[in-house]
Amino acid sequence: MSMQEATELSYADCRSLLAGGELGRVAVSTPQGPRIIPLNYTLADDSIVFRTTPYSLLGTYARNTTLAFEVDDVDPATHRGWSVVAVGRATMVVDVDELSVIKAIWDPQPWVGGQRWMYFQLPWRELTGRRLRGSS
Amino acid sequence: MSMQEATELSYADCRSLLAGGELGRVAVSTPQGPRIIPLNYTLADDSIVFRTTPYSLLGTYARNTTLAFEVDDVDPATHRGWSVVAVGRATMVVDVDELSVIKAIWDPQPWVGGQRWMYFQLPWRELTGRRLRGSS
Repeated sequence: MSMQEATELSYADCRSLLAGGELGRVAVSTPQGPRIIPLNYTLADDSIVFRTTPYSLLGTYARNTTLAFEVDDVDPATHRGWSVVAVGRATMVVDVDELSVIKAIWDPQPWVGGQRWMYFQLPWRELTGRRLRGSS
Repeated sequence: MSMQEATELSYADCRSLLAGGELGRVAVSTPQGPRIIPLNYTLADDSIVFRTTPYSLLGTYARNTTLAFEVDDVDPATHRGWSVVAVGRATMVVDVDELSVIKAIWDPQPWVGGQRWMYFQLPWRELTGRRLRGSS
């Protein structure tokens, strides 16, 4: 059996891959344990920006707390691909000017319909990733 | 702008999609906040099974605690796809017979090389999912 190899990605590569993605997954701690939520996102400067609703898990538990955020792209056939993980403290975007900038660059197309008017920003303090070379 | 639609998946659909997947992401709570780790997995009965190393985040923090586990498949072009999330309490597989059964059905091909001899099982107490109908 050929073992697979992984190489650490540089910060620049991680940022570039993160910028090129569209769907990510957020991990949040709740009193009932960790939860994981897939959602679409964009970048604004060095923050991940995503939207949610006030009564969702994220709306309830993500404010002013540490989150982990993951994007990946792995080919199931070859096992080649990459994953990038960001960790940081999320805050709600409340500044009207900041919101205008975000809305100007990000035409909101939520994966799920609904009133997702809470914008979060997640400036990362860690950004790491790996490239998987596959097994073939 | 056409809003996207999502429908809840039945338990049977969730289980079937979970059984057909190969790459998932685990969320684990740590003293430094939640973390998210992509890995490959298999199912054994009604448990998700994955491997890790003793000194990894999962080896350190995942034992006998609640984890969330996510799989998805979304087409970036059409935004069609699905996501399934499992929540449960993870335990280390220590029983020799159980390990034999798992190893017989799962030829270990870790996404990343290394000594991943710790097997975890995550029998889910919640299994939910959504199908995304896309925006086109």
